[in-house]
Amino acid sequence: MDSTDRFSGKVFALAIRLLIVLSLVTFSIDTLPNIGAQVKRNLHIIEVITVSIFTLEYALRIAVAENRLRFVCSFYGLVDLAAILPFYISSGLDLRAVRVFRLLRLIRILKLFKYNQAIVRFQRAFVIVREELILFGFIAAITLYLSAVGIYYFENVAQPEQFKSVFHSLWWAITTLTTVGYGDMFPITTGGKVFTFFVLMVGLGVVAVPIGLITSALSQARSEEVR
Amino acid sequence: MDSTDRFSGKVFALAIRLLIVLSLVTFSIDTLPNIGAQVKRNLHIIEVITVSIFTLEYALRIAVAENRLRFVCSFYGLVDLAAILPFYISSGLDLRAVRVFRLLRLIRILKLFKYNQAIVRFQRAFVIVREELILFGFIAAITLYLSAVGIYYFENVAQPEQFKSVFHSLWWAITTLTTVGYGDMFPITTGGKVFTFFVLMVGLGVVAVPIGLITSALSQARSEEVR
Amino acid sequence: MDSTDRFSGKVFALAIRLLIVLSLVTFSIDTLPNIGAQVKRNLHIIEVITVSIFTLEYALRIAVAENRLRFVCSFYGLVDLAAILPFYISSGLDLRAVRVFRLLRLIRILKLFKYNQAIVRFQRAFVIVREELILFGFIAAITLYLSAVGIYYFENVAQPEQFKSVFHSLWWAITTLTTVGYGDMFPITTGGKVFTFFVLMVGLGVVAVPIGLITSALSQARSEEVR
Amino acid sequence: MDSTDRFSGKVFALAIRLLIVLSLVTFSIDTLPNIGAQVKRNLHIIEVITVSIFTLEYALRIAVAENRLRFVCSFYGLVDLAAILPFYISSGLDLRAVRVFRLLRLIRILKLFKYNQAIVRFQRAFVIVREELILFGFIAAITLYLSAVGIYYFENVAQPEQFKSVFHSLWWAITTLTTVGYGDMFPITTGGKVFTFFVLMVGLGVVAVPIGLITSALSQARSEEVR
Repeated sequence: MDSTDRFSGKVFALAIRLLIVLSLVTFSIDTLPNIGAQVKRNLHIIEVITVSIFTLEYALRIAVAENRLRFVCSFYGLVDLAAILPFYISSGLDLRAVRVFRLLRLIRILKLFKYNQAIVRFQRAFVIVREELILFGFIAAITLYLSAVGIYYFENVAQPEQFKSVFHSLWWAITTLTTVGYGDMFPITTGGKVFTFFVLMVGLGVVAVPIGLITSALSQARSEEVR
Repeated sequence: MDSTDRFSGKVFALAIRLLIVLSLVTFSIDTLPNIGAQVKRNLHIIEVITVSIFTLEYALRIAVAENRLRFVCSFYGLVDLAAILPFYISSGLDLRAVRVFRLLRLIRILKLFKYNQAIVRFQRAFVIVREELILFGFIAAITLYLSAVGIYYFENVAQPEQFKSVFHSLWWAITTLTTVGYGDMFPITTGGKVFTFFVLMVGLGVVAVPIGLITSALSQARSEEVR
Repeated sequence: MDSTDRFSGKVFALAIRLLIVLSLVTFSIDTLPNIGAQVKRNLHIIEVITVSIFTLEYALRIAVAENRLRFVCSFYGLVDLAAILPFYISSGLDLRAVRVFRLLRLIRILKLFKYNQAIVRFQRAFVIVREELILFGFIAAITLYLSAVGIYYFENVAQPEQFKSVFHSLWWAITTLTTVGYGDMFPITTGGKVFTFFVLMVGLGVVAVPIGLITSALSQARSEEVR
Repeated sequence: MDSTDRFSGKVFALAIRLLIVLSLVTFSIDTLPNIGAQVKRNLHIIEVITVSIFTLEYALRIAVAENRLRFVCSFYGLVDLAAILPFYISSGLDLRAVRVFRLLRLIRILKLFKYNQAIVRFQRAFVIVREELILFGFIAAITLYLSAVGIYYFENVAQPEQFKSVFHSLWWAITTLTTVGYGDMFPITTGGKVFTFFVLMVGLGVVAVPIGLITSALSQARSEEVR
C-alpha cells in the first residue's frame, strides 16, 4: 500500500510539473502578436483548467495537512496560494490592468522547486563562498563603474550620442566586461581602445572569478556530502 | 606474426579514419554553390569508391566475426551498416529527395568513435556530475525563460519588431546569457538595460558553472584512474 | 560602553560608505547632457555637504590619532586627504579646467576599501599565482601581437580601411581573443578566417587560463586560512 | 667577480629583450599607412642598429661557446641566426619581395623565450593533459563540423548569401561556439535558432572544458614542484 502511495505520489508530482510547464507555454503563446480569437479562447480554457487543478491541489493539501494553519502559512503553502490568486483577482479587472498582472502568473514557477531536493547542495555551496562573492560583487561594481567613467572621458567627445553620460557608458561597461559585445557601443578613439584593453585585462577576471568560486564550492559541497 | 597483425590493424584503422574525413570533405565541397559538372562527377566517383571500401570492410568484418548475427546487431555493426545504407537507397531516388537524405551520410562520423577508447573517461566524468548537470540544466532553463519574459515586458513596446513575443525574446536570452551577443537584438530602454545587467550578473554563472563541473569531474575521473 | 562604541563605529562607517556612493551617483548625474540649472545647483550643494563631512571626518581622525603625523602620512590618511583636496583646489579654477579635474573626485572610491578586511585573502591569492600570472601576461601579450600581425597580413589588402596597420589590427585581436566580438572588425577573406580559427583555438586558453589560476589560488588561500 | 658577472649578464639580457620589443614596435609602425619618408628612414636606421647588435651578440656567443659547432646547431643558436638572416637576405631584394619577407623578422620573438625558465612548468602541465586535449580537440572538431552542417541546412535557403556552403557555415560555427559572435552571420529562421540553442548548450562545454583542463594541470604541476 505504501509503495503504491509513493508511486502515485510521484506520478501526481510529475503531472503537476507538466501542468506548470504547459501553463508557461500558454503564457508565452499568449504574447505572440496576431494570434486569432479562437486560439485566444483555447488558451483561456487551458488557463481555467490549470487553475482549477491547482486550486483542487491546494484544497486537498489543506484537507490532508496535520496542522492546517501551519501549512497555509508555510512557504510552499503561500506559493500554492500565490499560484492561483492572480487568476481569481484578475477575473474581475479590465484587460489593461491584466497586462501588468499577467506576470504574476509566473509565480507558479516556484511550485517547480517544491519537489526538488538537490537545491540544498547548491545552498550549502553558496554559504561556503558567500563572503568571497560579496567581496567580488563589490569589486565588480567598482570595476564596472570606473570603466564607465573612464570610457566616458575618452569617447564622449568623439561619440556624444553613444557615450552620452556615465550611465550610458555603464551599459557599455556591462556588455564589454561580460564579453557579450552586442556592437551597439564601442570605442573608436585610440585612447578609448587602449583603455578598453586594460579594462578587459583586469576586468574579465573580476567578472569571471566568482563563477569559478561557485564551481569549486559546489565540488567541495559534494565531497562533504559523500563523507 | 602477431605484432605484424597489430601494426597492419593500426594502419587499416588509420586508413578508414582518413577515408571518413575525406568523405566529410567531399560532402562539404558538394554544398559549395557554382561548382562545375566535372567537380560534381569527381565528388561522386570519390563517394562511390568510399562506399565500396566501407562495404568491403563491413563484409570482411561479418566474415571474420565469431558470432556473425551478434556483430550485425551490435552497435558498431549497425553503425557500419548505417554508414553505407543511405548511399544504396539514395541511388534509386531523384535529386530532390537526395538533398534531405544526404545528411544521413554524416552517420559515418560515428565510425570515427569506434577506435577511440579515451571516451570511457569522459563517460565516467559524466556519471559523477550527472545529478548537478540535470539541476543546472533545470535552473538554466528557468533563468532563460524568466529573462525572456522580463526583457519582453521591458522592450516589447519600444521594439515591437525585435521583441515580438516571449519566444522571440528567448533568442535574445540565449545569445546574451551565453555571451555570444550577435547584436541582432539588444535592449534600448533604460529598464531593459538595467534588467539585462541583473540577468547577466545571475545568469552568467548559471550557464558557465556546468562547464566548470564537467572539468572538475574529468580531473576526478583521471585521478581515480591513476589509482 | 565598549560595545556601544563598536556599534556606533559600525553605523558611522556605513554612513561614510553611503556618502561615498551618493557622491559617485551625483558625479555620474553631473555627466548627463541637458540637465537643468536647478539640478546642477542641487548637485553642487550635495557635493559641498559631502566634502564638509569628509573634511570633518579627516579632522576628527587627526584629532583622535595617537601619532598625528603618522596618521597623516599613512596610506589611509593620504586617501582621506586626496578625497577632499580636489574640491578645495578646483573651487578657485574656471570650469574648463574642472572637467579634467573632476575625475580626481573618484579617488574617494579608495575610502571604500578602508573598512574591508577580506581583501587580505585576495592579496595572498595573488602572491601564490604571481609568477604564473606574469608568465601568462607575457604569453598573452605575444599571442595578441602575433594575432594582430597575422590578421593584418591576411586582411589589409581586402579591408585597408579596417585593418589599416598592426596597431589597428591589435584592437581586433583584443576584442576577438577576449570573445567580446563587437562586430566592428572581422576577417572577410578565407585566409583571415582560417587564421582566426587557429588564433581562437590557441588564444582563448592563453587569455582564459589566468582567470582559472586566480580562482584556484583563492580556493587555496581560503583552505590555508581554515587551517 | 662572479656576482658582478651575473648582474651584468642580467642587465645584458634585459637590454636584448628591450631591443626585441623596440624592434617589434618599429615593425608595427612600419605598417601604418601615410607615414612620411623621414619616419621611414628613421625606422630603417633603428632596424640597422638592432640587427647590428643582434649580429654582434651572435658573434660573441659563438666566440665564447665551448663547442662552437654545437652552439650554432643548437635551438637557440639557430634562433639567433634566424633573427638576423632575413635582414641580410632582404637587403639585396626589391620591395615587393620584402613585404612577404618582413614577417620573418618576427622570428626574433623566439629570442624572448630564451631567458624564460617558467615555461618548463607550462610544458609539464601540457604533458599531464595531452591525452584529454587531443580527445577534446577531436570532439571539438566534430562538434564544429556538425554545427556547420546543421546550420547550413537550416539557413541556406533563407540566407543563401551568408550560409553559402558548409565551409561558410564553419565560420559561423567557430565565432558562435567561442562566443565571439561578431554579428556578421546569425540564424534568422526559427529552426536555425532552436538548433543554435542546442548547439550552444552542448558546444560551449566542448570548447571551454580544455581551458579548464589546462588550468587544473598547471595547479597540479605547481604542487608537484613544491614537493
